[in-house]
Amino acid sequence: MDIIKPRTLSGFMELLPGKQAQMERMMEILRKTYSLYGFAPLDTPVIEDAQILLAKGGGETEKQIYRFSKGDSDLAMRFDLTVPLAKYVALHYGELAFPFRRYQIGKVYRGERAQRGRFREFYQADIDIVGDGKLDILNEAEIPSVIYRLFRGFGLTRFQIRVNNRKVLNGFYSMLGLSEKSGDIMRTADKLDKIGPEKVRAILVDDCGVSAQAADEIMSFMSIKGSNADVLAALEGYRGKDPVFDTGLDELRAVTENLAAFGVPEENFAVDLTIARGLDYYTGTVYETTLLDHPEIGSVCSGGRYDNLAGYYIDKPLPGVGISIGLTRLFYVLDEQGLLNPAAHSASADALVIPMSPEPTAAIALAEKLRAAGVRVQLYGEQKKFKQKMSYADKLGVPYAILLGEDEINAGKCSVKDLRTGVQVTVTAEEAAELILADKLAAENAPVILEK
Amino acid sequence: MDIIKPRTLSGFMELLPGKQAQMERMMEILRKTYSLYGFAPLDTPVIEDAQILLAKGGGETEKQIYRFSKGDSDLAMRFDLTVPLAKYVALHYGELAFPFRRYQIGKVYRGERAQRGRFREFYQADIDIVGDGKLDILNEAEIPSVIYRLFRGFGLTRFQIRVNNRKVLNGFYSMLGLSEKSGDIMRTADKLDKIGPEKVRAILVDDCGVSAQAADEIMSFMSIKGSNADVLAALEGYRGKDPVFDTGLDELRAVTENLAAFGVPEENFAVDLTIARGLDYYTGTVYETTLLDHPEIGSVCSGGRYDNLAGYYIDKPLPGVGISIGLTRLFYVLDEQGLLNPAAHSASADALVIPMSPEPTAAIALAEKLRAAGVRVQLYGEQKKFKQKMSYADKLGVPYAILLGEDEINAGKCSVKDLRTGVQVTVTAEEAAELILADKLAAENAPVILEK
Repeated sequence: MDIIKPRTLSGFMELLPGKQAQMERMMEILRKTYSLYGFAPLDTPVIEDAQILLAKGGGETEKQIYRFSKGDSDLAMRFDLTVPLAKYVALHYGELAFPFRRYQIGKVYRGERAQRGRFREFYQADIDIVGDGKLDILNEAEIPSVIYRLFRGFGLTRFQIRVNNRKVLNGFYSMLGLSEKSGDIMRTADKLDKIGPEKVRAILVDDCGVSAQAADEIMSFMSIKGSNADVLAALEGYRGKDPVFDTGLDELRAVTENLAAFGVPEENFAVDLTIARGLDYYTGTVYETTLLDHPEIGSVCSGGRYDNLAGYYIDKPLPGVGISIGLTRLFYVLDEQGLLNPAAHSASADALVIPMSPEPTAAIALAEKLRAAGVRVQLYGEQKKFKQKMSYADKLGVPYAILLGEDEINAGKCSVKDLRTGVQVTVTAEEAAELILADKLAAENAPVILEK
Repeated sequence: MDIIKPRTLSGFMELLPGKQAQMERMMEILRKTYSLYGFAPLDTPVIEDAQILLAKGGGETEKQIYRFSKGDSDLAMRFDLTVPLAKYVALHYGELAFPFRRYQIGKVYRGERAQRGRFREFYQADIDIVGDGKLDILNEAEIPSVIYRLFRGFGLTRFQIRVNNRKVLNGFYSMLGLSEKSGDIMRTADKLDKIGPEKVRAILVDDCGVSAQAADEIMSFMSIKGSNADVLAALEGYRGKDPVFDTGLDELRAVTENLAAFGVPEENFAVDLTIARGLDYYTGTVYETTLLDHPEIGSVCSGGRYDNLAGYYIDKPLPGVGISIGLTRLFYVLDEQGLLNPAAHSASADALVIPMSPEPTAAIALAEKLRAAGVRVQLYGEQKKFKQKMSYADKLGVPYAILLGEDEINAGKCSVKDLRTGVQVTVTAEEAAELILADKLAAENAPVILEK
């Protein structure tokens, strides 16, 4: 038979079992955390009608989308989870309870130029709260709590949730008479971290046509820093000049003032006026999340408040708030930087049961007993030499090998060998289960991400 | 703005939140059960190089596959999880420990003619054990134990795992001098349940060119029935006439004799000589699983032993054994027949916390306290009338509403209303958590499928 050389497409992540286990662990923490806040799991098709997916159309999306025909159908693969959500909410409007909270962890597709750390197929892990006509600010205030619990669940403490409000920005630009240029200005200001204040100011004046005086005002506004109370106090100095600004400031206060009740420590949260999220889509609170020791990664969890989720599909205002995590990229970067915890539960079994007598019945029964107790057991059935069996156990990375020979069977016991320490004990099946489960629990509670 | 009518493509399942929760529950049981047997979770791209995916090529696959170009690339969407597994094992051969056990729950794509209950995008939930050169029969013997634990996990008792062995069949046809026709004969015999013995016999004689005498022998062989011991005893009558048959009979014995140790009751298992699985791929044990009260559904979990997983991609014999569940179709049929348990944990939250005072701080803190205890809490922030708030709770289907007014706050308590019974108690947050978690546990342990 002719052999076709196997390969995986460039830009498509495919992990070895140990790494995949770490990815699964992150997904489990995502599902569990999102569920704790009452978000319902949602699953929508990977393929949609291209006309529907491209309703907004334009720009990068049209270029990057995977679009093709099958029979008479013009099909496309989803490029995010927001457009499918909009379609879902519009289509099932009458059957949903609003506010509608959903989470979705799913693959999306963008045919970008292939480069290191860029993926064409990648997971997004999104939550959204969608209101019918209205949505209370309390929902926006709750989002940092979800992010905080999530990143703590990953094992992190050194991260910061950065929050701003688009109404504050829009109102401020309105005060300067720059409303029409606010989109350009915000996109420029968003680069502050990357290119520094001088270049931002230069672009504002040279490219955006902002006067030198207004540019100074903008730079001075952007440089407001300090504790949440400091920043809010400084913003109070602008109150009364623009109604949109005042509303934004009230919202920013509402999001900030209940942080303690939401369990978010002050050090994990900052009002940051430089954040705009380079999208015209957001209208209120916007969020970014950075790892304090790894600013080069950029924001790992971003989102915000929007006013009109599904205007392309339904004639109803559906405001909402949501955040998205680019899970595949996050995982890739964490792995590349050596931040994934190798101790965290990455073996596919807790124990390998190795029959040492010709008759496997006792080993089978032992394996089933341990499984019934919750131990993940692989039964080793191959006819190999003892050394090869142990070498397999090592390669598999299981913490324990359980040996069952005639002596153990006659004594109603089994020999449990800790492969990390080499220590072997001969115990009953119940004792073996207890021993292994204690270890399993510790591994499950180990942080999936390490801080360095 | 022009409205585009939202729709979901025909043949693509998209569930409402309550149903989706039931689907998630099934997936969780699948993941948990597969993990207990040491299967490692695997995730491979949905899109692969078309040449690689179609290495085997031919027939329905080429017609049904979603294939398209992007730039210079000839791409295709996976139509099963077996071919991507073969590619994965061949590609990562040097990095895997064999036997390699993996499970994968993922979407696959087949552009079939759309019809009721047929899906173009559907989940498969597969396990495979792949050996390097050899794979012990013990692995084949373990598969019914996985299936049994899985379906019990779903809440079922009235199901039967049916097992046969291709070597027994091949050996038998060899005895009759019909080896060359064995493929046609097995495909015909596989229809026995559907079209009955007379039609099968007619096809054998008229279409397959089997002599009347041989057809009688085949029909008599196929009619061997009874307990596992009865069937094996009847098969012993054929021993010594064909070496392949004898090996197959030994394997069938090995798979059957340790059932008790594997925890599989005799009534959930049957040696069934009519099963062939209509694929040339299988070479040893083959499996089907039927719901006893719903034979019309057909097999809900099938698979078998194969000798050469990845011959198209690597010059090494990689024998294996695997089973596959067509999860989307199974879910659809269960739902259609009303067999999904509505009581099983389908609400997206365990409790809705409703602030009854203008200041939400106490309600926020209560929600966080309950979440820390493991209660899935949705916080209701909308400014609505009490009646509308309660009507939302009802629509959401949450079992409990928690009301927090000035009285409760001052007393350090909260009012917990069971929305199913209308009973309301005023308790501390700790007591509320205990009450709700007991209920949550019961819902989580409720069978996801009901037997009727």
